[in-house]
Amino acid sequence: MNKVLNPIEFKQDKLFLVDQRKLPLEEIYNEYDSLEGTFEAIKTMVVRGAPCIGFTALFGIALWLKKNTYEPEKLQEAATYLKSARPTAVNLAFEVDRVVEMLKSGELDTDNAYKNVLEFANLQLEEAEAKNRAMAQYAEVELDSLLGKEKYQIQTHCNTGILACGTLGTALGVVQHLGEKERIENVWVDETRPYLQGSRLTAFELMKLGIQHKVVVEGAASYLMKNGLVDAIFTGADRIVANGDTANKVGTSNLAILAKHYNIPFYIVAPSSSFDISTPSGDQIEIEMREEIEILNYKEHRIAPHESEALNPSFDITDGTLITGIISEKGIAKGDYKLTLEGII
Amino acid sequence: MNKVLNPIEFKQDKLFLVDQRKLPLEEIYNEYDSLEGTFEAIKTMVVRGAPCIGFTALFGIALWLKKNTYEPEKLQEAATYLKSARPTAVNLAFEVDRVVEMLKSGELDTDNAYKNVLEFANLQLEEAEAKNRAMAQYAEVELDSLLGKEKYQIQTHCNTGILACGTLGTALGVVQHLGEKERIENVWVDETRPYLQGSRLTAFELMKLGIQHKVVVEGAASYLMKNGLVDAIFTGADRIVANGDTANKVGTSNLAILAKHYNIPFYIVAPSSSFDISTPSGDQIEIEMREEIEILNYKEHRIAPHESEALNPSFDITDGTLITGIISEKGIAKGDYKLTLEGII
Repeated sequence: MNKVLNPIEFKQDKLFLVDQRKLPLEEIYNEYDSLEGTFEAIKTMVVRGAPCIGFTALFGIALWLKKNTYEPEKLQEAATYLKSARPTAVNLAFEVDRVVEMLKSGELDTDNAYKNVLEFANLQLEEAEAKNRAMAQYAEVELDSLLGKEKYQIQTHCNTGILACGTLGTALGVVQHLGEKERIENVWVDETRPYLQGSRLTAFELMKLGIQHKVVVEGAASYLMKNGLVDAIFTGADRIVANGDTANKVGTSNLAILAKHYNIPFYIVAPSSSFDISTPSGDQIEIEMREEIEILNYKEHRIAPHESEALNPSFDITDGTLITGIISEKGIAKGDYKLTLEGII
Repeated sequence: MNKVLNPIEFKQDKLFLVDQRKLPLEEIYNEYDSLEGTFEAIKTMVVRGAPCIGFTALFGIALWLKKNTYEPEKLQEAATYLKSARPTAVNLAFEVDRVVEMLKSGELDTDNAYKNVLEFANLQLEEAEAKNRAMAQYAEVELDSLLGKEKYQIQTHCNTGILACGTLGTALGVVQHLGEKERIENVWVDETRPYLQGSRLTAFELMKLGIQHKVVVEGAASYLMKNGLVDAIFTGADRIVANGDTANKVGTSNLAILAKHYNIPFYIVAPSSSFDISTPSGDQIEIEMREEIEILNYKEHRIAPHESEALNPSFDITDGTLITGIISEKGIAKGDYKLTLEGII
């Protein structure tokens, strides 16, 4: 097993991706040297998480340029093909369209297109890491000024680490940052039903990092908080609107309400690109319903009666009023989010 | 498949138990005609739920008396053997000791010991059903006076129906009672991790009863309540102490806090035998920690990394102040539980 987890890496003219479908029991790195391979990796979910998919796509375009001379029409065809691997992934289309446009406009020199796109892709990863690190540092300062403990007990939800982000990560980036300084007493990993991102992915990352953690069912949150076992909660966000209302993995809003009840600070950690201040409140966010089978089956095993139904909202909305602070690479927004978020953007 | 679910029934000199280990995918009734068979059923968890185990034990003693002439020492041996099937099951020891004592003292005539113990066992079941029905009726009156709707959307946690209680049940008894009157719009069945009593057992009961229901992950509770999809919450209780603090399946206290936040009534339904008014508050209740493997595995499948740990509290304590009312066969306690519970006992 590799000591360091690096789910996406380009070296020796090849792309290496950890096969996230095999985690947490097997850590297998797949090699890709073509656009077609990259397409398959995205389509079959070897790689997941919006930022990770975006980076993979950039490397995929680079691999195409390694084998082919730059021709706008042919690259456009390759780009359209790559985007069709997961048609609803916004980051995938965004990154592919952007790099195609940069070559077309000359912003990236087409003479050494392969080398230039590769450099651009690696730069994106580095910039993302710098942003994640900035968030983590803001979070540490915030915790110290609020609680002033040497070590912290942190609760987190879903997976927001390197497996989702391709680099440090958001809420889990805070945990890794504190862990590197030996400032983590324990991390409570919500298993995060139905897809178990917590027990499968977050626990795996923390195991690789050697950070003390325990998996819990979501039902245990009140027990933990009531018994003084949680100093602060950090989660990521899919979208943050003008009044601070935040869409994130279902169950996030439960944690925020429990935290308020027990007077425990609750933070959202997300890049400022997740801010959508043109939407006034969470009421305007539509919640995606996912397949019932995610709840009614575990893999091929049926858990519930065949006749039973389920409701599977993928996200929920956490009221801005329940959030102690929203931490981005630009700083921490608190209080009246209509003012503080707008100030940051 | 039987139309009616009757997990425990004595007929034609035999005990019939639904094999609860095979639910919800197979509904198989096992036949027992001996003490030894009954012992095995309890030990191997064909039957579960404290009241159900107690009733099974009474029928087991009856079966012994069918084959053996009453002799105090021999019956005592049989009783000791039966109790060893699950040494920590309080109800098992209680029911066995009680019926042995009743025969010894002559309260039950030993001349027709088999017939008399059988009658006593069936009477216990009938009395339990009458108590459960009384609770359900109190709950219906309460809902109507508070909300006055024609049909209700109810959320419940864990399994508190006929599979646990051998008869109607507590919180799920309320649901069945309302369902019989076609007063259920929908039941939100918490899947209840880690043991999935909700998706496996509660959903099965509701399916058999033909009551509209949907399974949800515990993380969806805030989503449901925020969107007006829950009129009231009913759960059972393992133990209720003097100030109304209630020990129940982990996750119950989460629901109570969320309900308070969203101003939704939250009820505990439990027989008055669960009241323990000699204990002043929930702080004095010890929480049982169960095996980590229940969280880290699904059956033989490992979910989390092999190196990861889990914390698996089996119960939590819901503050009495969060409970709208405690419904027993004797009525509803509300407000200052120190006064209202004592009044009921």
